[in-house]
Amino acid sequence: MVNLDHSASRMDRIPFSGIRKIFEECDQLEQSGTDVVHLEIGRPDFDTPSEIKQAGSQALSDGHVHYTSNYGITPLRSALSDKLSAENGINYDPENEIVVTTGATEAVFVTMLALVEEGDEVLIPDPCWTYASSIRMAGGHPVTYELNPKTGFKPDLDSLTEAVSERTKLLVLNSPHNPTGGVVDRDTLNAIEDFVVDNDLLLLSDEIYEKIRYDGSEHLSPAAKNTLFDRTITVNGFSKAYSMTGWRLGYLAAPAELIDPIVRVRQYTTTCAPSISQHAGVRALQSGLHEPMVNAFARRRERIMERIENIPGMSCPTPSGAFYAFPTTPEGYPDEEEFVWSLLREEGVAFVPGSVFGESGHGRFRIAYSNSVERIDEAFDRLEDWL
Amino acid sequence: MVNLDHSASRMDRIPFSGIRKIFEECDQLEQSGTDVVHLEIGRPDFDTPSEIKQAGSQALSDGHVHYTSNYGITPLRSALSDKLSAENGINYDPENEIVVTTGATEAVFVTMLALVEEGDEVLIPDPCWTYASSIRMAGGHPVTYELNPKTGFKPDLDSLTEAVSERTKLLVLNSPHNPTGGVVDRDTLNAIEDFVVDNDLLLLSDEIYEKIRYDGSEHLSPAAKNTLFDRTITVNGFSKAYSMTGWRLGYLAAPAELIDPIVRVRQYTTTCAPSISQHAGVRALQSGLHEPMVNAFARRRERIMERIENIPGMSCPTPSGAFYAFPTTPEGYPDEEEFVWSLLREEGVAFVPGSVFGESGHGRFRIAYSNSVERIDEAFDRLEDWL
Repeated sequence: MVNLDHSASRMDRIPFSGIRKIFEECDQLEQSGTDVVHLEIGRPDFDTPSEIKQAGSQALSDGHVHYTSNYGITPLRSALSDKLSAENGINYDPENEIVVTTGATEAVFVTMLALVEEGDEVLIPDPCWTYASSIRMAGGHPVTYELNPKTGFKPDLDSLTEAVSERTKLLVLNSPHNPTGGVVDRDTLNAIEDFVVDNDLLLLSDEIYEKIRYDGSEHLSPAAKNTLFDRTITVNGFSKAYSMTGWRLGYLAAPAELIDPIVRVRQYTTTCAPSISQHAGVRALQSGLHEPMVNAFARRRERIMERIENIPGMSCPTPSGAFYAFPTTPEGYPDEEEFVWSLLREEGVAFVPGSVFGESGHGRFRIAYSNSVERIDEAFDRLEDWL
Repeated sequence: MVNLDHSASRMDRIPFSGIRKIFEECDQLEQSGTDVVHLEIGRPDFDTPSEIKQAGSQALSDGHVHYTSNYGITPLRSALSDKLSAENGINYDPENEIVVTTGATEAVFVTMLALVEEGDEVLIPDPCWTYASSIRMAGGHPVTYELNPKTGFKPDLDSLTEAVSERTKLLVLNSPHNPTGGVVDRDTLNAIEDFVVDNDLLLLSDEIYEKIRYDGSEHLSPAAKNTLFDRTITVNGFSKAYSMTGWRLGYLAAPAELIDPIVRVRQYTTTCAPSISQHAGVRALQSGLHEPMVNAFARRRERIMERIENIPGMSCPTPSGAFYAFPTTPEGYPDEEEFVWSLLREEGVAFVPGSVFGESGHGRFRIAYSNSVERIDEAFDRLEDWL
């Protein structure tokens, strides 16, 4: 457990994203003519499926160019309600329990601003995505709990028990998980259920990688449990499953009582999600448009694991979901910052140092397999030659 | 001067928008078969110009569907830099002084969160749009200054002097102004310049209605003044000028030193503005696509003023910009809430009570002329019959 806050002023605790420096270095290398292999970017490299793009164009033709309700258009909320019922086993009222947001990022942000008060503590996994900054902007304090590499990066329950306090307001769960690819299984979720109820917490369940899973691993939504429904904010979106990162379309669902303050905040952040994206989102939900992309990720994952095995010192559990692996650094390179930066500058292969995602990322780095098998091979060929 | 804060908890001070209740009543009336004349909606009623929609479709065809930089795409920042130089007389570096946002709403929101600290006071006009909630979410306190109906709702300088204190951090200026249609002239801006410099304030200049002006009234950007450039955040967007409210596309520009904390916040609100909208925005800036819409607003404004003159008790200065008039209520209806709600329920004519915009709105109401001359006549015919 680490309480991450020391500084007094809010803005002192809101840093530039740690990945940004890697992006900037890639830009500079490419401007000077280097062929950079990108395995650092946390977004699908595919085009959005053409059916969805057609729905976007149709929305333009139909003149869907005006503000929508703060909650989002009715057809999308209805479609989301049906999806959450059929796929996740949760019944949300489309009228007042679902809010369409400008990406899942905004869903996390407005949830924190609405529900976290000055001095509240929020439990976040280490490693994890950038939840900490939203929590701090709300005046709260992020406190980390551990994920265990030996169980495929599932939440460590002893660590949760150690991290919780009287001031803890909310627990963040993220499954499938960025940056490790870990997926929470049924036993772990049962234990988390007890933990959340016993400690009277709220639960933000970030399910943005829901559709990207392998080897038949299950996706379990906490809010499907009766005991958790009243306490849970389910966050999801279209960016990762449908390669729609630029469309800025996400959503959150929660009981009406929790939605009320969230919508009040959300009026003043962006008013509503982009109208064109909302109409395209209805089409996205209609069938398995994500499947070809997930199959491609599966092939890349296999190749990544084959290549990792051949490098002394490198290892990680096989990811069960998302499109990330989080291996240890190669033998002789204990410092992940030095490893990642040297490899990038000398060989033009871009990864992200594990420490960007938290203290537990020391000695690890993130591989995003949002690139082709050919480019993955190119990256590992260069790495092997360099070592 | 009124310090608007009394309550302790942040979320207690973040209300639902005051216009929402009117929207909901309109919905219910229409569902029960009433023909409602909409003069309450603060958005252009036109379709987005077809050239811009074509650019949006082209962006989809070209696969511009991925995250962009937090700052926005380079072509749009370059075009904005050119626009701000040519039209506003301000030189902003497209590299690090312009940030594309998810609507001007987000531009205001991230500016407040980045620059206003716990306990800071922020001067906002009374009446005004919903700046207060963003200020409160940042931990600041909104303090109002007056607009004078006798000068066409220009800022009252005595009132500014009365409102400022040692704790004042930032002044919000909005010209052309929502909800009055007032436009700041050169003399007033000169006085505000002295006021801002003397009191060592920052200035947020909300110029979202810039393009919508009448009778040759000038638009003056504060940041064009050398003394104000370093202190000013210029906020603008595409929603009102190009009827693009659903596209969620705005921007802010400021010296790099102020941009730095703003972008740090902005990473965690929505990551970036919608990529498709950004590409369409480049096209929007290329020519006078707003002109036919502004001409239509001008014709409606004339009709509104003709009709207002004929109703005893109603009067307001002729608006110089935006698409709002803010008249006094008719004789015999001193309570604007009672007037607006009775008229809506009994005659199906929708306005917004002035008090939604601040204390000074008592005895006034807002007419948004985002509807045709025919419907404006229909509304006033019903009003005259009803009185």
